[in-house]
Amino acid sequence: MDDESQIPPGDTALRLRKTALELFARHGYAAVSMRQIAGEVGVQVGALYNHISDKQALLYRLMAEHMVELLQAVAAADLPKEPLAALEGFTRFHIRHHAARPEAVFISYMELRNLSPENFALLEEQRQAYEARLRQILERGQAEGVMQIADARIATRAVIAMLTGITTWFRDGGGQSLAEVEEIYWEMVRRLVTR
Amino acid sequence: MDDESQIPPGDTALRLRKTALELFARHGYAAVSMRQIAGEVGVQVGALYNHISDKQALLYRLMAEHMVELLQAVAAADLPKEPLAALEGFTRFHIRHHAARPEAVFISYMELRNLSPENFALLEEQRQAYEARLRQILERGQAEGVMQIADARIATRAVIAMLTGITTWFRDGGGQSLAEVEEIYWEMVRRLVTR
Repeated sequence: MDDESQIPPGDTALRLRKTALELFARHGYAAVSMRQIAGEVGVQVGALYNHISDKQALLYRLMAEHMVELLQAVAAADLPKEPLAALEGFTRFHIRHHAARPEAVFISYMELRNLSPENFALLEEQRQAYEARLRQILERGQAEGVMQIADARIATRAVIAMLTGITTWFRDGGGQSLAEVEEIYWEMVRRLVTR
Repeated sequence: MDDESQIPPGDTALRLRKTALELFARHGYAAVSMRQIAGEVGVQVGALYNHISDKQALLYRLMAEHMVELLQAVAAADLPKEPLAALEGFTRFHIRHHAARPEAVFISYMELRNLSPENFALLEEQRQAYEARLRQILERGQAEGVMQIADARIATRAVIAMLTGITTWFRDGGGQSLAEVEEIYWEMVRRLVTR
């Protein structure tokens, strides 16, 4: 997945985003300069400004792309109507999508403080749109009597925090497979919303 | 709790740690210099080195203190023997302890990558000692037949991620009280470990 050879050397825009993501994840946004990114990409710093206006725009773009990709992927997952089946589908989708992108997940949480207020507000809207997908499943489950939830908004945050936490410890080949981990988490999520 | 006036101006060591915690949380470890910390504390940079050998030692000290404080506090919480009561006690303890320290929680997660390998290993031991407190409660609950858990190690991580997630959104005076939030989470945790 991270095979650099798959990126044509001429595709500076893509190399720029990939390099920036890695450097921000490793050193933090504030500690990385455009010059350093240019050096890793293998271009002059001036060439970066053909692709992006400044470092803030680059950070926002990485975080916004992560959210757009997430929103498109969850829509494409085409979750079933039945609330418990939809919750199972959401749980499995969320685990797989995030486990494949630990750097983007890390940055999306960690670098929120470095976004300008305008960019933060834009991103917060996208994050809430994603949360709403899960919350609506829980509210439907509640309305149809197949789930018992004290507070759908809080249960949504609890489930997302629990599932996203997997990215902090799961490593391929480290004991359990992701499929096994998925089964265990789905059972926990199911219990969490049913009596 | 954050009332600066409570710290005697002469207590440079304490001011140093408090200032470093705030600056690291706001800008990130890599972006903050010892000179900047000295400026905020209101001393010459040389004076900092009477208290700490370098910035790495300062980061480790902040993170290690957070863990020592956590381990002492959970020991002092004197959790009951009965597994479900112990789990309830642990849940309420974890929520309250972390909700009161969002900056230390943020840094403890975010700046792991900036620790030297030796310091990382030391901290990881402390983190595992804390996780073990919860895992042992779950294993006892399992053994006594009052909990049904597929994987105690994974359930431990799931519960901790879920509860620590509260620090990313909970703000005093923002709708629910922490006591209300605590009730809702305890009900979710209880369900998660029982059939």
